[in-house]
Amino acid sequence: MSDGRFFEDFALGEEIRHPTPRSLTDGDVALYQALYGGRHVLNSSQPLAVAHGLADRPLDDWLVFHIVFGKTVPDISRHAIANLGYAEGVFHQPVYAGDTLSARSTVIGLRANRNGKSGIVMVRSCGENQRGETVLDYVRWVMVRKRDENSPDPEPHMPDLADAVASHQLSPPHGDFSNWDCQASGSTRVFDDYHIGDKISHCPQASGGTTLEEAEHMMATRLYQNTAQVHFDALAQSQTPFGKRLIYGGHIMSHARAMSFNGLENAIGVAALNGGTHAAPAFAGDTIYGWSEIIDKAEMDGRVDIGALRVRHVMQKNAALPDDRQKLGATQGEGEDGAATVILQLDCWLWMPR
Amino acid sequence: MSDGRFFEDFALGEEIRHPTPRSLTDGDVALYQALYGGRHVLNSSQPLAVAHGLADRPLDDWLVFHIVFGKTVPDISRHAIANLGYAEGVFHQPVYAGDTLSARSTVIGLRANRNGKSGIVMVRSCGENQRGETVLDYVRWVMVRKRDENSPDPEPHMPDLADAVASHQLSPPHGDFSNWDCQASGSTRVFDDYHIGDKISHCPQASGGTTLEEAEHMMATRLYQNTAQVHFDALAQSQTPFGKRLIYGGHIMSHARAMSFNGLENAIGVAALNGGTHAAPAFAGDTIYGWSEIIDKAEMDGRVDIGALRVRHVMQKNAALPDDRQKLGATQGEGEDGAATVILQLDCWLWMPR
Amino acid sequence: MSDGRFFEDFALGEEIRHPTPRSLTDGDVALYQALYGGRHVLNSSQPLAVAHGLADRPLDDWLVFHIVFGKTVPDISRHAIANLGYAEGVFHQPVYAGDTLSARSTVIGLRANRNGKSGIVMVRSCGENQRGETVLDYVRWVMVRKRDENSPDPEPHMPDLADAVASHQLSPPHGDFSNWDCQASGSTRVFDDYHIGDKISHCPQASGGTTLEEAEHMMATRLYQNTAQVHFDALAQSQTPFGKRLIYGGHIMSHARAMSFNGLENAIGVAALNGGTHAAPAFAGDTIYGWSEIIDKAEMDGRVDIGALRVRHVMQKNAALPDDRQKLGATQGEGEDGAATVILQLDCWLWMPR
Repeated sequence: MSDGRFFEDFALGEEIRHPTPRSLTDGDVALYQALYGGRHVLNSSQPLAVAHGLADRPLDDWLVFHIVFGKTVPDISRHAIANLGYAEGVFHQPVYAGDTLSARSTVIGLRANRNGKSGIVMVRSCGENQRGETVLDYVRWVMVRKRDENSPDPEPHMPDLADAVASHQLSPPHGDFSNWDCQASGSTRVFDDYHIGDKISHCPQASGGTTLEEAEHMMATRLYQNTAQVHFDALAQSQTPFGKRLIYGGHIMSHARAMSFNGLENAIGVAALNGGTHAAPAFAGDTIYGWSEIIDKAEMDGRVDIGALRVRHVMQKNAALPDDRQKLGATQGEGEDGAATVILQLDCWLWMPR
Repeated sequence: MSDGRFFEDFALGEEIRHPTPRSLTDGDVALYQALYGGRHVLNSSQPLAVAHGLADRPLDDWLVFHIVFGKTVPDISRHAIANLGYAEGVFHQPVYAGDTLSARSTVIGLRANRNGKSGIVMVRSCGENQRGETVLDYVRWVMVRKRDENSPDPEPHMPDLADAVASHQLSPPHGDFSNWDCQASGSTRVFDDYHIGDKISHCPQASGGTTLEEAEHMMATRLYQNTAQVHFDALAQSQTPFGKRLIYGGHIMSHARAMSFNGLENAIGVAALNGGTHAAPAFAGDTIYGWSEIIDKAEMDGRVDIGALRVRHVMQKNAALPDDRQKLGATQGEGEDGAATVILQLDCWLWMPR
Repeated sequence: MSDGRFFEDFALGEEIRHPTPRSLTDGDVALYQALYGGRHVLNSSQPLAVAHGLADRPLDDWLVFHIVFGKTVPDISRHAIANLGYAEGVFHQPVYAGDTLSARSTVIGLRANRNGKSGIVMVRSCGENQRGETVLDYVRWVMVRKRDENSPDPEPHMPDLADAVASHQLSPPHGDFSNWDCQASGSTRVFDDYHIGDKISHCPQASGGTTLEEAEHMMATRLYQNTAQVHFDALAQSQTPFGKRLIYGGHIMSHARAMSFNGLENAIGVAALNGGTHAAPAFAGDTIYGWSEIIDKAEMDGRVDIGALRVRHVMQKNAALPDDRQKLGATQGEGEDGAATVILQLDCWLWMPR
């Protein structure tokens, strides 16, 4: 349905198969590298990945997420007013160059807003590879415009969502990471070196920020076949309160992952997306900085080679991070003079060798 | 001849073999994806393409065109004043990642201009793959500067060109599209749903435009090994009436194809280039919008799975399209206050499943 | 050591194995193509490269250099004040898509500066492929900040460096270039057509310059996994004397190679890096131009198919080159009104068919 769905067009329990299966290749990997500059070694070195039992170096997990997410946009959020949240996202399978991903979503929650103009649509979206294996699924909810304010409202239904994916529900990564090579990865800090409450600056010494560019975020967003016009049409955007193109929130998620190398060098992959909030918009010209807090840890049954770290990534813009790690987060807030504006909070489980 | 040919350097009937054969790969496919954001499923999904009998997902036809065109630039249009038109372009063979393209041109028309400063050169250019198979040929004519105003003029000769490629001269696509999957492609509109005279907005609801960026058009043009300096040198361009870098016309053709997904979702490929006019220059910062008109239809002998739609793509800039499809084209014209400027008219045959 | 080394952290003779082995693919080749627009045929055509006895088309030599260089940045030059020079660089082996490169450096020189604040560190860096073969090694020296001004200085030691790699120390390229196809390459000028003292404009007729873009140099630098923050963080850079992002010097080296196609069309590869100076910084918005001087020639023992040309590439910015080749270089100098600023001098041996 290329004109997109309004709130009335969604029915509880309906499954929507999204168009445009997409083959991913080394070309996508190279573009992703050029866009974010990641240095996590498992995504970088094919021989190293194979030595750990994988078929190839896996694609960055957020690239996989964006490809799946992009497919859902025309059907789910073409007429969205706001992307409200994510939950219960689990990365199930590695994706390799040569794989083809397709996506479908099931409507799991609907609730009209009191103003009669819109409603909340909650879907569980699922990405599959060419063998029909689920590589990723996650819940997303968005506020969607009604076509007709007088159309009848559905019975409200919103499922309860877990605060976080329970560690026993994670899909441990393929391969064996017992003999992890900390010289190849760039750091000796592994699972046992992190503690709940640790704050980690990914941009220490007032450094390490990245300034966002129109050409980069648009190339990224097209790579993901995400067609949301707010990212591309400066003329239309000039007539909105923002006045300019909005950057796809996922672009910031990928920058967060790449930046988080400084301090989380051995985080070999993303296990789960527990939640995420695009707290403020980002625009070309903004300079972004990231830090993280360790909020939980979990050992995995039957796995002595890896554990899971639950991490809250925070991305801020237009003010460098404080040198004192304990002050990270203290200057958050929008609009304060000289204060950073938080643009993303991302709650994830990460895989970490032990 | 790396210094380029002036008008006197062309001889009727001469065949010019252009330098720099070029291997195309999945890397080129990914860059093209990032530059234009195409969603036509046959170019996107390798398993789907193979299920229809192709060897792989084919490269976008305009990528093939630009690669061939780029090779002709140093020999044919290095000293061109204007690129005047295209005709009789036929796409003969799919091109896949791994193929290597080379190009040659035959001079089929020459006519000096009365002012003594330039003349028209018409060539038939041909792109071949590594097996010597023609993948594309087309006629192009350009106005080329003379080196010496006093040099003698050749006997004028200009061949008659067909208004459009006749439908029986098209090369029907490899494969069988009988069981076309409209869920994978994103639309159920197929050959029989289009009628001559239909106007289709690719940017409905005042949306869907794309703002052009210097970094994007330069990366595209370099990808095609097209070296025309007007696209790259802002300092030299600052001394021209335009005052800034001109965007390669082919960049707009590719945007037209990608945008045309909205309304022509099932157009699986380009069959022919009947003609094209770069009606006005495009610059970084311009926002472009597209619409199309169906101008002919043809069934193909012996093929019940596909037909050909003749389509006129129109690209405009800096004004959103009218919501009323019947008004498309009515506000064309340059210089009117608030009116769109047409930058490209492109007359093509497209393949469409039935 | 992800926080980087200060001057005191280096020990003479120490070998540093750099993190993040990196698999290179056709995707990297395509991005490099889009960033620089190279037309050297051996890098462009897989069948042509195979016909000359190579396994595939080789990756551009400077792409290989940047990948190796990028790996050394976090360990060697994270706290560098200036990148002072290169010497004795030899390209030993072709690198193909599918290869994985890693890097290590040996500290071969140390000398504290008198001001007590910094010192010179000289390293020999070496890039290896997945079979442990050296593909490239070169010497680089940088001025590195001290952590503590009172820390004791090492015994000064600086090895003597060769002015240039001797021609008998070059590693002649794999393959046989006896039947070089000058139509495919775009020029008939080969080894014997060049003479010591020749000056070659790569941008003749006041044309051929390229204007630099933020998105392009950042994508390039991330592709090389080079994390030096001066290239990415406009906010931090606004507080430096430059006021803006600095462009990675290697970005200019790659532009020099691509531009040098005009006049050095048959230079099939880089044999050696004798020296290089980033004479002035380059910024987005600058327009760059290149020319070269032939400074030496060498026949190779046992090879009748190729010879080596020693070339000095010069890149200038913000003024077109003079039409008279003999005047190339005469207008160098910084700050003169209307005069070009030299940004790069690069002394290389190039392979050239005979």
